Amino acid sequence: MLRNDQLAEWDRETFFHPSTHLAQFARGEVQSRIISGASGCHIEDRNGNKHLDAFAGLYCVNVGYGRPEIAEAISKQAHELAYYHAYVGHGTEASITLAKMVLDRAPDHMSKVYFGLSGSDANETNIKLIWYYNNILGRPEKKKIISRWRGYHGSGLMTGSLTGLELFHKKFDLPLAQVVHTEAPYYYRRDDLDQTEEQFVAHCVTKLEELIAREGADTIAAFIGEPVLGTGGIVPPPAGYWPAIQAVLDKHDILLVADEVVTGFGRLGTMMGSDHYGIKPDLITIAKGLTSAYAPLSGSIVSDKMWKVLEQGTDENGPIGHGWTYSAHPIGAAAGVANLKLLDDLDLITNNRETGGYLNSAMHDALGDHPNVGDIRGEGMLCAVEFVKDRSDRVYFDAADKVGPQIAGALADLGVIGRAMPQGDILGFAPPFCLNRAEADEVVTKTVQAVSRILD
Amino acid sequence: MLRNDQLAEWDRETFFHPSTHLAQFARGEVQSRIISGASGCHIEDRNGNKHLDAFAGLYCVNVGYGRPEIAEAISKQAHELAYYHAYVGHGTEASITLAKMVLDRAPDHMSKVYFGLSGSDANETNIKLIWYYNNILGRPEKKKIISRWRGYHGSGLMTGSLTGLELFHKKFDLPLAQVVHTEAPYYYRRDDLDQTEEQFVAHCVTKLEELIAREGADTIAAFIGEPVLGTGGIVPPPAGYWPAIQAVLDKHDILLVADEVVTGFGRLGTMMGSDHYGIKPDLITIAKGLTSAYAPLSGSIVSDKMWKVLEQGTDENGPIGHGWTYSAHPIGAAAGVANLKLLDDLDLITNNRETGGYLNSAMHDALGDHPNVGDIRGEGMLCAVEFVKDRSDRVYFDAADKVGPQIAGALADLGVIGRAMPQGDILGFAPPFCLNRAEADEVVTKTVQAVSRILD
Repeated sequence: MLRNDQLAEWDRETFFHPSTHLAQFARGEVQSRIISGASGCHIEDRNGNKHLDAFAGLYCVNVGYGRPEIAEAISKQAHELAYYHAYVGHGTEASITLAKMVLDRAPDHMSKVYFGLSGSDANETNIKLIWYYNNILGRPEKKKIISRWRGYHGSGLMTGSLTGLELFHKKFDLPLAQVVHTEAPYYYRRDDLDQTEEQFVAHCVTKLEELIAREGADTIAAFIGEPVLGTGGIVPPPAGYWPAIQAVLDKHDILLVADEVVTGFGRLGTMMGSDHYGIKPDLITIAKGLTSAYAPLSGSIVSDKMWKVLEQGTDENGPIGHGWTYSAHPIGAAAGVANLKLLDDLDLITNNRETGGYLNSAMHDALGDHPNVGDIRGEGMLCAVEFVKDRSDRVYFDAADKVGPQIAGALADLGVIGRAMPQGDILGFAPPFCLNRAEADEVVTKTVQAVSRILD
Repeated sequence: MLRNDQLAEWDRETFFHPSTHLAQFARGEVQSRIISGASGCHIEDRNGNKHLDAFAGLYCVNVGYGRPEIAEAISKQAHELAYYHAYVGHGTEASITLAKMVLDRAPDHMSKVYFGLSGSDANETNIKLIWYYNNILGRPEKKKIISRWRGYHGSGLMTGSLTGLELFHKKFDLPLAQVVHTEAPYYYRRDDLDQTEEQFVAHCVTKLEELIAREGADTIAAFIGEPVLGTGGIVPPPAGYWPAIQAVLDKHDILLVADEVVTGFGRLGTMMGSDHYGIKPDLITIAKGLTSAYAPLSGSIVSDKMWKVLEQGTDENGPIGHGWTYSAHPIGAAAGVANLKLLDDLDLITNNRETGGYLNSAMHDALGDHPNVGDIRGEGMLCAVEFVKDRSDRVYFDAADKVGPQIAGALADLGVIGRAMPQGDILGFAPPFCLNRAEADEVVTKTVQAVSRILD
């Protein structure tokens, strides 16, 4: 068996970790951590340390770790047929069954699902399809995509452009042309404290209308948004936001992409975020919850309206020039089928809704009056605590003080993993759906201790 | 058990297949084919039909189908730890071990590997790193990427732009700005039939120099190329091509990306295409052969020279804003470790070189004199037959006649899968490395029959 020190040396010498301070890691200033096992809501590293993972990996291990049902499905598929491609009408029992299961869970007006690997590549697919759609309809100028500041839609060149966070733009020359950003539906950070939620929604609508007028509706193809802002700070929309936005888009014939990578398949306590908020999207991006991360798989769910035009496009132009070698990979498809079945069989979405509600309410009770807690918000099994220097006027801490990361670090030392969201001092939680009340209590109690260590 | 007709119905109703004529598929004019099992070089569908897969999926199942060693590794990993992320210095025994194994097989001057999922996303990562590199070096204008016509580098927006094939551009508004294309090293399709290979290489160099002069070397960041053109027609470079190109790039301080998605890990009969042709790349793209497609995994191997600048970048700017949720996914990493080990243990690259040479030579013997065969070419376990209306002056068939797809179809009817490459009438072969001589003979014999059915 490989020794830990040997692995740590290989790690420093050969492994380029994502979202990491590369120089500090190479110098050994960032500790490498080698995860060796996991079960339920807990992960364990090679040094024997256990943590309650209250972020479910990267809000993706929705059904919890160590589910033998999914591992068995993966194993069976790997032995029977690990791979064949899905080009030119090829499929496997797993991929076809999963396509059917996805459509059964999507809003009624959706038609087909294209399978990719990651949320990023699914959003790439979406933009390609949107451009193709408007080309087939003879509207070659209608191509820009509106995204929101603080949205997260991936880490590629175009998808990182859709993302509205500085960390993903700086030094990468993003956003690319064709992407324009509008106001985030971030009620807590409204400019005018006197605005009601309703007034703030009207303000978001006005900003969007102004952007469309400035750019010209005939240049704008689509609007993309997460039902609840995720990596941008875990921000549920103010009441009435989505119907108001949808009305603007419909008026200008602008397609709506619901990025449900985080919210899809139960995270909000309902199957899909689109149904949760009454959104009627033309495309839905899915990934994480589709397989609970047991194997990579993503998807773009296409509406009837778009599908008809795509069919017309191939009648006019021949086979569609888009495909990934690993589209609908059998291992991912098998994991997806087992995962969605488990979600139903164990009624995990109900537990998610109930325990998520409990977690949010307990967090309010414990930290709602803390002088440095500006906002506590959540929906389903999502919860965020936003820290401020002064709660009366919502003043930010100096970013250099890294208050959010410090609190997340203190919490990890106490054995609970939350996530310091990348912009602002926001501590995020997105536990597996199988979290129980005792575990929710532990998250809250230790968060209070961690906050106290850093701020009191 | 699900019935075939039921699966076929779900397939038509819900599954968006890549690279497919969507309207014909929806109307039932394209047969859906449900693959149920595979072993060695053979696949089997749910109707009991068996085929010799002489394209190894999409030239990716390099070690052959049904390897229990890889299936077991996947199963073990799925049971122990199906997922944890690799952000902020996290790893698993499998991902760290694989990083070490990849670097051991890469040219000596390479430093680290970033793991993604597909060749497309690895090339996204590459462009992000190239832009970041030049920003850190204070050269914000040096950003354009040179690719070759007929190159294939992915199907995303930017990676589809790198790709130099009409099918992937048309109706998608590609290529995007920042990508410029130069001459393909396609000796058979040279304009001047009197050119020697050496003269044709000089011509390619002149074309590249002219492009660089036109755009300005201070605007060009990198050049990307496959050691052997793959999807563009399976075209090995003329002798001396790579050293000549590398010299031009070095002179103008332009980075070189070797896209080894097809050639990496043995396809040419040597471990890496870069070593095969004496290329010294700054980045190497890897995917298919890394896991033999048993699970999705790709990588960007970064040179020492670039890595130093990336480290400097994070010292100046903090953690790098790039990551996929499924970077270094444990299932893919476990598959990769088992796959590379199998490649060594069974000495598959030697078999690949020997049987690949035999296949190419037998194909020459069988079809070299056919009046409609213009060129037969290959390297390692790659072989292509290019069909022409008239071999004396290399006249193309009318594209509408679909001669290439027709021959591939006739060959499939005879039980052998080749691939009609998307541009020109080129029949491609890229069998698993475990192909034996009897199977190579079958490929050749049936190709002759298929050609005869369509052309004689």
